[in-house]
Amino acid sequence: MGKRVAVVLAGCGVFDGSEIHETSAVLVHLSRGGATVKMFAPNIEQMHVVDHLKGAPTEEKRNVLVESARLARGKIQDLSQLDVKELDAVIFPGGFGVAKNLCTWAVQGKDCSVNEQVKAALQAFHGAGKPVGLCCISPVLAAKVFPGCEVTVGHDADARAPDVPGTAEAITQLGCKHVCKNVSETHVDQKNKIVTTCAFMCEAPLHEIFDGIGAMVQDVLKLA
Amino acid sequence: MGKRVAVVLAGCGVFDGSEIHETSAVLVHLSRGGATVKMFAPNIEQMHVVDHLKGAPTEEKRNVLVESARLARGKIQDLSQLDVKELDAVIFPGGFGVAKNLCTWAVQGKDCSVNEQVKAALQAFHGAGKPVGLCCISPVLAAKVFPGCEVTVGHDADARAPDVPGTAEAITQLGCKHVCKNVSETHVDQKNKIVTTCAFMCEAPLHEIFDGIGAMVQDVLKLA
Repeated sequence: MGKRVAVVLAGCGVFDGSEIHETSAVLVHLSRGGATVKMFAPNIEQMHVVDHLKGAPTEEKRNVLVESARLARGKIQDLSQLDVKELDAVIFPGGFGVAKNLCTWAVQGKDCSVNEQVKAALQAFHGAGKPVGLCCISPVLAAKVFPGCEVTVGHDADARAPDVPGTAEAITQLGCKHVCKNVSETHVDQKNKIVTTCAFMCEAPLHEIFDGIGAMVQDVLKLA
Repeated sequence: MGKRVAVVLAGCGVFDGSEIHETSAVLVHLSRGGATVKMFAPNIEQMHVVDHLKGAPTEEKRNVLVESARLARGKIQDLSQLDVKELDAVIFPGGFGVAKNLCTWAVQGKDCSVNEQVKAALQAFHGAGKPVGLCCISPVLAAKVFPGCEVTVGHDADARAPDVPGTAEAITQLGCKHVCKNVSETHVDQKNKIVTTCAFMCEAPLHEIFDGIGAMVQDVLKLA
């Protein structure tokens, strides 16, 4: 039987929600791996709505669960409904929505708070010895909730990864270990069963990001 | 040098815009094929906005170009700026937005009208002998603009393709030839350089849809 995997979203769009191509890549690789997917998002208002053409916030209000439903083709549940007993693993795609809607990293960095349902879900999978997969900026969730864990957000000496050094440093300040990895690689924290890959944190061709996420999904399924 | 390919979008979300996973698949395969991508969408209001959680229209107003920019991570142009001389091929992902925002197929079927900029773009590529790739419901654009062409929207005797028979019949009534194909296959109209695949018109695992779109992209790049 295929593994049962939760995918937790943060909206729909790189600047205010889940990164669309990372999410799609996660779902394609889970499908190829024979997994059964259940999608979730918190039923809360987005921190803000960004006009992705202008790259600037608007006055609009949108709901994280309702917008995430676009990525899920309607098949998504309120994160409050997540039951870890019915699932073998959880994956968090990236995108600024993770740092804006699932926690407050975008404004508070390492001093951020994590949404209570997100924190509870992470702790439940971790406590049950079930793997957690994260990509792009999502590894900061693990760094905040599991002090001492090991994650990657990319290669901090790579000119193509402008956001990595600052993020990696903040992760280190939280008492975690940042491991440099290229876009095609994952880092597996075997003790904590946390699998991370940098995805769009590094500037790389889309198919390389797709393949790196594939490696992350495969490692998660192996640990599940 | 890689081929220069236009991708034309219709919003962001299966029920009122471009199908997200089809669009992402197109972009992953174009990236792997070494293509340079330029993305476009018409700067018009969406026919309507659908709450993808409820599956019902809302009172909101959204702009096709602005929402399409979510899929393009901001790198998108007004369709009025498309210059066929700078491009080698064009691809239209599917999603209801194609039948609602790029033409009026969703309400008028074969008697629909096609957005003038969309029609002009299709005729410009076709007239220059440059290939056109379409998937899911998008082949109706070709059927409407190029009477006599050959397209597929899937296998009309497949129980997993509930929407195919009616669409295939309407395409035939427009004087075109509908060719039955499975989700992994494309149909290439060599004379018109039109490449089609059914994608989400058929109910299939996401990775099979991803692979079918890959075959379509490869056939487009071969013809370009």
